[in-house]
Amino acid sequence: MVGLERPLSQMLGSEPLTADAFAPFGDVIEERGEPSWLINDGRCGRFHDRARVDVADGRTGISLFASALASLPYRLVMMERHPLGSQAFLPIGDARTLIAVAPDTGGEPGPPRAFIAAPGVGFNIHRNVWHGVLAPLSGGGRYFVVDYVGERANLETHSFAEPLLIG
Amino acid sequence: MVGLERPLSQMLGSEPLTADAFAPFGDVIEERGEPSWLINDGRCGRFHDRARVDVADGRTGISLFASALASLPYRLVMMERHPLGSQAFLPIGDARTLIAVAPDTGGEPGPPRAFIAAPGVGFNIHRNVWHGVLAPLSGGGRYFVVDYVGERANLETHSFAEPLLIG
Repeated sequence: MVGLERPLSQMLGSEPLTADAFAPFGDVIEERGEPSWLINDGRCGRFHDRARVDVADGRTGISLFASALASLPYRLVMMERHPLGSQAFLPIGDARTLIAVAPDTGGEPGPPRAFIAAPGVGFNIHRNVWHGVLAPLSGGGRYFVVDYVGERANLETHSFAEPLLIG
Repeated sequence: MVGLERPLSQMLGSEPLTADAFAPFGDVIEERGEPSWLINDGRCGRFHDRARVDVADGRTGISLFASALASLPYRLVMMERHPLGSQAFLPIGDARTLIAVAPDTGGEPGPPRAFIAAPGVGFNIHRNVWHGVLAPLSGGGRYFVVDYVGERANLETHSFAEPLLIG
């Protein structure tokens, strides 16, 4: 496992985003394997139900994020999590995306891992999973986002004493 | 209004997809106006809650559709609707999409209208609104889809006695 037991001052390498490797943190939403079934007279494949959308008492909503680009090496200074719901990022256009995630260790992020999502690949961060803020590495920085929509506070943050560099 | 009171044998023109024109049928999910608020230290705009996700007793899910391309003039032979939920189409890559929708007239589609969504623009068809099947006109024909996921039957179809040509 990349990143475990490294001091934060060392460089954390990034891994390609795969469903298996990302499973402890969320879902990879991509065309993988055969379609679940065909629709529209066989002209369209449905890859069915690829993300655990898990949203609390509010509604599930669809928003659009327009972000500035990030670059490597990336300085991870904080992580956040959303107690009220999962958050899916569905890239528009050719975005490659850096995703930092971490297990929870007593209410704080444990050792982070970093993944890179290829263009056209969406990802869903499970409810209450620590993650870095949206970090598009290429493309227009635009994403459709499926997450909690409601009035209750849904953001918890943790700032690191020492930034972690992701290479 | 385009398409009203035309015999089905005539060609129906398509309109650009705009939020106002599409409002009777669903939502346009795009970067429009100013962001609702800024996040990530001002580096990312959130265009918040741009679709009425309205799903019955199942879960909201995220799937991926991979469709063959369609072309104009398009032969609309049937329409369908989903009694259990809205259905959002979020294009991956440079898809331009033809969207045929119709009001309900006594349990059947009334006079259809046709819209064209520009690349990068998502759309959400409201629950129980008659629409044609997914018809990408360009790009790879790939879409993230946010809709009802569950066991109950969620498809009603109507075939036209005479196909409608959309130009």
